[in-house]
Amino acid sequence: MGKRTVSQATFEEMSVSDFFYRNRDIAGLTNPSRSIFVAIREVVENSLDAAESQKIPPDVYVRLSFESEATKDTQIYKLRVQDNGCGIQPRFIPSAFGQVLYGSKYKLKQARGTFGLGGKMAVLYGQITTHKPVLVTSSTGQEKIYSFKLMIDIQRNKPILLDRKVITNKDNWRGTIIEFTLEGDYLRAMPKIIEYFKQTAMVNPYANITFVDPKGRLYKFTRVTTVMPEPPTETHPHPYGVDVELLQRLIQVSTCLNMSTFLRQHFHRVGEITAQKFLEFAELPVNKSPKKLSHDEIVKLMQNLKRYKDFLPPDASCLSPLGEELLKAGVMKELNPECLVVHQRKPSTYAGHPFIVEMAIAYGGGVPKTGGFVIYRFANKIPLLYDEASDVAYKVISAMNWRRYKVTPDMPIAIVIHVCSTKVPYKTVGKEFISDRIEVRKEEANAIREVSRQLSHFLTRQEHVHMEKKRLSIFSKYLPRIAEFSTTLSGQTRCPDVDKLLKSVQKYGTEES
Amino acid sequence: MGKRTVSQATFEEMSVSDFFYRNRDIAGLTNPSRSIFVAIREVVENSLDAAESQKIPPDVYVRLSFESEATKDTQIYKLRVQDNGCGIQPRFIPSAFGQVLYGSKYKLKQARGTFGLGGKMAVLYGQITTHKPVLVTSSTGQEKIYSFKLMIDIQRNKPILLDRKVITNKDNWRGTIIEFTLEGDYLRAMPKIIEYFKQTAMVNPYANITFVDPKGRLYKFTRVTTVMPEPPTETHPHPYGVDVELLQRLIQVSTCLNMSTFLRQHFHRVGEITAQKFLEFAELPVNKSPKKLSHDEIVKLMQNLKRYKDFLPPDASCLSPLGEELLKAGVMKELNPECLVVHQRKPSTYAGHPFIVEMAIAYGGGVPKTGGFVIYRFANKIPLLYDEASDVAYKVISAMNWRRYKVTPDMPIAIVIHVCSTKVPYKTVGKEFISDRIEVRKEEANAIREVSRQLSHFLTRQEHVHMEKKRLSIFSKYLPRIAEFSTTLSGQTRCPDVDKLLKSVQKYGTEES
Repeated sequence: MGKRTVSQATFEEMSVSDFFYRNRDIAGLTNPSRSIFVAIREVVENSLDAAESQKIPPDVYVRLSFESEATKDTQIYKLRVQDNGCGIQPRFIPSAFGQVLYGSKYKLKQARGTFGLGGKMAVLYGQITTHKPVLVTSSTGQEKIYSFKLMIDIQRNKPILLDRKVITNKDNWRGTIIEFTLEGDYLRAMPKIIEYFKQTAMVNPYANITFVDPKGRLYKFTRVTTVMPEPPTETHPHPYGVDVELLQRLIQVSTCLNMSTFLRQHFHRVGEITAQKFLEFAELPVNKSPKKLSHDEIVKLMQNLKRYKDFLPPDASCLSPLGEELLKAGVMKELNPECLVVHQRKPSTYAGHPFIVEMAIAYGGGVPKTGGFVIYRFANKIPLLYDEASDVAYKVISAMNWRRYKVTPDMPIAIVIHVCSTKVPYKTVGKEFISDRIEVRKEEANAIREVSRQLSHFLTRQEHVHMEKKRLSIFSKYLPRIAEFSTTLSGQTRCPDVDKLLKSVQKYGTEES
Repeated sequence: MGKRTVSQATFEEMSVSDFFYRNRDIAGLTNPSRSIFVAIREVVENSLDAAESQKIPPDVYVRLSFESEATKDTQIYKLRVQDNGCGIQPRFIPSAFGQVLYGSKYKLKQARGTFGLGGKMAVLYGQITTHKPVLVTSSTGQEKIYSFKLMIDIQRNKPILLDRKVITNKDNWRGTIIEFTLEGDYLRAMPKIIEYFKQTAMVNPYANITFVDPKGRLYKFTRVTTVMPEPPTETHPHPYGVDVELLQRLIQVSTCLNMSTFLRQHFHRVGEITAQKFLEFAELPVNKSPKKLSHDEIVKLMQNLKRYKDFLPPDASCLSPLGEELLKAGVMKELNPECLVVHQRKPSTYAGHPFIVEMAIAYGGGVPKTGGFVIYRFANKIPLLYDEASDVAYKVISAMNWRRYKVTPDMPIAIVIHVCSTKVPYKTVGKEFISDRIEVRKEEANAIREVSRQLSHFLTRQEHVHMEKKRLSIFSKYLPRIAEFSTTLSGQTRCPDVDKLLKSVQKYGTEES
């Protein structure tokens, strides 16, 4: 090859909003149908979070209205979403809607929105397809209502403030209204959008959700209870899930003067005794100042935190699962199956994040007969409707030895999975599916085995009942004849009562037949 | 509800490296096995790009060596990748390896790496799991070789320079060496890693790739040609794919004084006549200054660019597809099938990005018999090995009416798909699969119909040959007997020659039987 001149590559920096603008497929904004679905979903989720975080039963009003034709297959729509959530303080509004990766969501706390990204991506998508600003109106219930007209400076990732209005809040209104235009294909997106609202209502039975579609059709999902689950609380990382970066950050911000208080104050479920025992295990002096740990000691600390066997498992109090009762009620309402088994796993942890798997299996009744299992996936009370085959749940279900549970593929069976976590391990920013984390896979596998075992009891019993019915029908056919024959043979005139005899051979209660 | 005090949410900003640190599943760094695969792949792809962009036949040397045990299932490895690519100028090195979203890749140009993210994510993953710096050594072939020791300040998304060395480049060495440690599970990752190298070698026949694994096993993929495809060139966006944001940026940077030159200078395949005709269609004066367009006019311009029917399709010269010959050779070498059909589609475009679909279908021979089709997916010469079922190709293949092409699911059939584009519409940053863009789906569907049609000719012919053999075997069984019988009957002694007769009823050449 020898010496040759090579033209030089030049390098440049890119803002994160520019990155997502150029790679919007990553956020699920793939085509006009999916984009409209994603936009609605992201905004609705923010609304539900805003209400739920304050234990306010959510009232979410969504209106999508036709504005104009765009291309052969797409139209321009106006999306308006109003909620009764906590509202946003005016000084945060411009960045909260006009700057990617600016949000209130960067906490170890269960929430629907997790990336500080979704709402902005919807706004950004609206802007690049229609070039109109977004209108945000919000009040925290105080004296004023604030209204902002915004666009996003994509190259600098900063909000551009076009207008700002303040009016008096006479009725103590509290909530947020967001309104923007976007290009989309509602006709193609409609089935998924309706399905999304349906399934959302199923796992948020304390929410009122109203959707008015571009044809003026009204979809109303009314709350069946005002009982709210306890809002999830913020939590500390569990020692099993820390990495070196996290340790360093904790050391940096910590005011603790020794390792024992450091461990107790910054980690989930570490008390005085546990801290002491762990420090013995890790051969670290209790009185060492965390700020004096060398890089190598930090790495060793991290490895020992992962190795130590006696940390308590994470506590579910920071999570807000559905609960077996609510899950049961939701599935019953939707599918009304012959047999329904629900099961909530104990909390577990992956990479320091606690999570809970809830599982239901439903058989017969209203379960759709599709020639395969119907899978309903939820994560932090969000329905996941796309890319099922990539979800860890699909892998778990496919890997099951169903014959062991007397289940055959042609049976009308629905499987409902809910994963809730302070951090759901989504594989995509578009929240289509959950990635194959070993810990999640194990929990889902155990949960499905548990519900399947109970289902197999039902199926076995059903089989027995079926055989018993057959047996009884033979008895009930021939016993009277034998009785009659015997009566004639013995010269009697009155046949003996065979009913008693029939009952005596019956193995199951009569309510079965 | 009345008046109630509501606790206020606080907001904060997050750096993009912090975002990916907290959401590494998004970049494919899901578990210890997949992470090690992703890390190797990202670095190797950068190496291949660095060589190919300068038409240098790539020599890539990859060594993964065991460092220490980490946890029960994982180990610490050192990854070292050396290439003979163009090298990086020293002033760019710290940011190129220590700042997320800093790169040379933000151009309309076909390349493997597309996010300015992959290499940094690998380095970042190494850092958070082992807390060791990355070592980068590079030279552009000039007098000096530069060596940098770096870490990433994740919260600020900035490189931390730990050390910098300069030595004299006596041998005019050119290339880049990157070395860092990371936690992983090589044993579980191994099959995918080897498969990755195999398939990479298949579509990069001009590359030498060497991989030394932690057990000291050597995998060597030697180039079979030094003929390099023309390096892809940078291109302008195609008018069908622009959005308002892009139009605004072009207007901002443009020095053009009228619409005609603006269109010709900034768009792909727009000449003087096309520009003129389009401006008539869009009812825009030729002499209007682009900088004087109002917001509404820009939106209208964008819509008209999408609506206008007579733009030329994008030109493939900016793309670097494999070509039918190379694809054929690659598949032949790997699978040696009985029947192989390859087809390259004409260039098409989605969202302004030109792309080409190349498709091969192989039958019999060395095609693995798995009880289903084997699908090989490539994008810009990268093998895609995960999440097949979510790829648009899988949807296309599943939606085919295979019976029409005489194909049954039990046949030994392999389908090879290569999509090359200035921007592959990946669904995930981890480059697992291509999203369901309508235009891509259509092209893939047309390509697979084309190769399937040709395969069905082969299958029909094979069926005919099979039936013909059966027919001939009946003739050849009975004709001699009839001849013998007739001879006896007519009192002759010499049987007539039936071979001529047999040949006359034969429909296909003898080489078939």
